[in-house]
Amino acid sequence: MHTQHDIHAIVFDVFGTLVDWHTCIAREAQAALLPLGYSTDWAQFALQWRAEYQPAMEEVRAGRIPFCKLDVLHRRNLDIVLAANRFNNVPERTRQQLTLAWHRLDAWSDVTPGLNLLKEDYLLAPCSNGHIALMVNLARRNGLPWDAILGADLAKDYKPKPAVYLACADAFDLKPEQVLMVAAHSSDLQAAKNCGLKTAFIPRPAEYGPQGGETTCPMPVDFTANSLIELGVQLGTMA
Amino acid sequence: MHTQHDIHAIVFDVFGTLVDWHTCIAREAQAALLPLGYSTDWAQFALQWRAEYQPAMEEVRAGRIPFCKLDVLHRRNLDIVLAANRFNNVPERTRQQLTLAWHRLDAWSDVTPGLNLLKEDYLLAPCSNGHIALMVNLARRNGLPWDAILGADLAKDYKPKPAVYLACADAFDLKPEQVLMVAAHSSDLQAAKNCGLKTAFIPRPAEYGPQGGETTCPMPVDFTANSLIELGVQLGTMA
Repeated sequence: MHTQHDIHAIVFDVFGTLVDWHTCIAREAQAALLPLGYSTDWAQFALQWRAEYQPAMEEVRAGRIPFCKLDVLHRRNLDIVLAANRFNNVPERTRQQLTLAWHRLDAWSDVTPGLNLLKEDYLLAPCSNGHIALMVNLARRNGLPWDAILGADLAKDYKPKPAVYLACADAFDLKPEQVLMVAAHSSDLQAAKNCGLKTAFIPRPAEYGPQGGETTCPMPVDFTANSLIELGVQLGTMA
Repeated sequence: MHTQHDIHAIVFDVFGTLVDWHTCIAREAQAALLPLGYSTDWAQFALQWRAEYQPAMEEVRAGRIPFCKLDVLHRRNLDIVLAANRFNNVPERTRQQLTLAWHRLDAWSDVTPGLNLLKEDYLLAPCSNGHIALMVNLARRNGLPWDAILGADLAKDYKPKPAVYLACADAFDLKPEQVLMVAAHSSDLQAAKNCGLKTAFIPRPAEYGPQGGETTCPMPVDFTANSLIELGVQLGTMA
């Protein structure tokens, strides 16, 4: 093992790369809001909620608001989207419970077997903007065998700020080039690459539903694979 | 479950409570230094090295030196103990490798089965002064099924500073009283209790070898058990 490269740990983007937020959030929003008499295109509702994600984090990255757990931003963004849809009388308790839908996302089918395979040879951790409790709940739900929960909550900043990627390598006592970042998003991989991490692109064409996700990566990466199993084969864990 | 108490997560002291540093450090020191021609009472050498632990962390807690990974303090303390024993020509590489002996400690025999039992009903994490990489290596070696690695490296301060215990509860999105701190050391439990955590005392009478560990806890605690299995029974996981 580790003969052709010096990778000792693999860190993962989570929303979109490992878990299907689009399907799950649409389902949860419908389940929470339809019984209250609200109706809309729930897949579109999920996209609207997700569209507020980067602008909200940018407030933190730019230093205009202090770092906070992602739950706080998800709740703020939910209020925005409910108002935009004129869903004006959603009770506080429903808003709180729906915000936690992001803790209840399902993994793509290759993820749990793929991580268990990769764990035989590498240290594994999420490198997500989700906070520790959210990552723990996703791990419990889907059986994700993490060695540690790394990411925004450890670095106290959000990707793609360099501190988040560098904190992952440092937490494992590794150099950046000994860590492989896996994501379905080229912007995430570019930021990791700029920090010296190795990169793997896993396309998730269904990430946004029919709207689609990135199917090719416009920048050079060290690995491109259609699943975590295939990534494991490329890394030589099955050799 | 959770009927008579509201505990959702259990966090653990590690050195002494979960792993037998005394036996392992004595063995590692002998293996590293005897072939170089150095001889001493290796059990005593382990005690000497450990005796430098609290004074070194106090430099950080008092703010006289910045927070650093425990490896840095373990190395500093090793140099002190080598000098005190007049082991003056130990090569740099041996010092580096022996420092990492703290990553290679064995768990007491009840620990791995006990944690697997407790994991059925509770979120589990170390609340140790050891840093993330050290905790990950101990987990891999002993099969410790952590949900997350919490402790000093997350709080950027050392126990018994309140920030370390409070950061554990916050990481799991829990109130302090929803978290149970497990330790073989009453000072650790007193500090956790002062932060509002629930407390469990697990005596480890062989922690210091013949010198002994604490066999009774001088303060009231919520649980006292002779093993993690017994703690699980008391918590009702086997009910």
